[in-house]
Amino acid sequence: MNGLMVVPRPALFLEPARLAAHLDLDLVLAVETFQHTGSFKFRPAYHVAANVPNPHVIAASSGNFGQAIASACRIFGKRCTVVMPDTSAQVKVDAVREYGGAVDLIDLRVKSRAARIRELADQHPDAYIASAYDDWLVIQGNATLGRELAGADPPFDAVVVPVGGGGLSAGVITGLEEAGSRTRVFGAEPLNGNDAAASLRAGRLIANEREPDTIADGARTISVGQRNWPVLQRGLSTIFEIPEDAIVQAVQLLFSFANLKAEPTGALSLAALLAAPPALQGKRVCCVVTGGNVDPSVYRALLGS
Amino acid sequence: MNGLMVVPRPALFLEPARLAAHLDLDLVLAVETFQHTGSFKFRPAYHVAANVPNPHVIAASSGNFGQAIASACRIFGKRCTVVMPDTSAQVKVDAVREYGGAVDLIDLRVKSRAARIRELADQHPDAYIASAYDDWLVIQGNATLGRELAGADPPFDAVVVPVGGGGLSAGVITGLEEAGSRTRVFGAEPLNGNDAAASLRAGRLIANEREPDTIADGARTISVGQRNWPVLQRGLSTIFEIPEDAIVQAVQLLFSFANLKAEPTGALSLAALLAAPPALQGKRVCCVVTGGNVDPSVYRALLGS
Repeated sequence: MNGLMVVPRPALFLEPARLAAHLDLDLVLAVETFQHTGSFKFRPAYHVAANVPNPHVIAASSGNFGQAIASACRIFGKRCTVVMPDTSAQVKVDAVREYGGAVDLIDLRVKSRAARIRELADQHPDAYIASAYDDWLVIQGNATLGRELAGADPPFDAVVVPVGGGGLSAGVITGLEEAGSRTRVFGAEPLNGNDAAASLRAGRLIANEREPDTIADGARTISVGQRNWPVLQRGLSTIFEIPEDAIVQAVQLLFSFANLKAEPTGALSLAALLAAPPALQGKRVCCVVTGGNVDPSVYRALLGS
Repeated sequence: MNGLMVVPRPALFLEPARLAAHLDLDLVLAVETFQHTGSFKFRPAYHVAANVPNPHVIAASSGNFGQAIASACRIFGKRCTVVMPDTSAQVKVDAVREYGGAVDLIDLRVKSRAARIRELADQHPDAYIASAYDDWLVIQGNATLGRELAGADPPFDAVVVPVGGGGLSAGVITGLEEAGSRTRVFGAEPLNGNDAAASLRAGRLIANEREPDTIADGARTISVGQRNWPVLQRGLSTIFEIPEDAIVQAVQLLFSFANLKAEPTGALSLAALLAAPPALQGKRVCCVVTGGNVDPSVYRALLGS
């Protein structure tokens, strides 16, 4: 990196002609697979590490936030501890360590993530406990993407973003609002874990009974966060509920027609378009492809199904 | 595409931290997998279509040049005919047709590509017969990438490019020269089809006896072109000869550490670094990843081997 300071890189905007023709849409992809650490999560992680005064950051993550917060903490000379289940894929553990994070492996049959985080917080009173989504710094970090989306010329009629804990969606809504954009924001959530869609319908925060069973591992959240919920309720036009087979098909389409390696969660937004939702017909639509970190064995299976 | 004129897009520059650490190199990737039609070939195709006065362009290509010239001709309102073996993968035939090209399928047991091109040239005296590499317009089209590489700050010590017919390598050399750059250019060629490396050693143009057997299908050329050869002889520092297993490993590394879907020919330049050539140690090195068009079934096999 030439000794230069690493900062979040802007999204890569692509207009894949064959994919647009295939879907008969005016389609743009906002790609975060080449963001540092391979997903948009570097944006909020960077914002957290840059802004908290604590010399140590602790987070629970078996996914992209773990790598991102480890990398961001190293940039700002902070310690970082990432709590991960001892069943995590070795490549994910290795990635956190390569970015300089200490990995704290737990046996989920013995202790929950939350319990271990409380223990670590007690042991390290100087540490900041970072949530991957339910944190204003996370929402503000993700708002940088919203501002980039607001700068599109011509402007997008609609942006589609995956919804897990609501960190990205709340951030994109916030960033677009801050920029005075009229672009509408749509969520895309696995049908198998449709707590956010159910919450919007009910007008109150509803949680899944357990961690949802979906290949979109970035959206296996019990519910959206307390801080995220009012932003989503105010700013989301709707949430599309995506069946698993559409997620797989979207991964395949991104591979074949856009040369993109996307992880399943990253393909949720494109998957939302496959059912040709009337609200998006004839519109200029931007799908956020949030990340590309997926193991070769999982990806081979996705391409082959 | 909003009715805007499509022009070649600049290369995407990536500095994949984990890949650089893995190889212990100051590594930059210049990525052409998101170029229009999925490979750098759109640059020369566009330059040909923009500059020849003929209303019709004819080319023989079973690969990326076929898609690229079809797409470029449509932009300039020209007819395009692409001669392809009748054994070509259906996805490749479909791609040429989707970009508006007429596909002329031939049975190679009955007629050679060259013979069919001569027939078509006789039938269509108004047509321009486009070579994918042995053409000054192709070299000039590829020189646009050389000029982009020359603009890197800090400058690259070395650029590594795949060598097939020599269109890209001659173009990159030309573009760097035109910009007054001191960046050195290295070629990467499959060991199984090392005609260009043999030519450099012999000081004269040497051809393979037959189409080389390599997974890098963009480098299955009999020899470099007559126009390309003097440029390569003048401008290439050396050509690395890449074993097949290194090509596969490079595809896997780009997948795992850079989230890049590269085709085998596109991974040749990174494959050259796996043997840690002394000429590149301690240098700031840019690898050109030339294209990403590879079928799912082929790619699955590459990831799994």
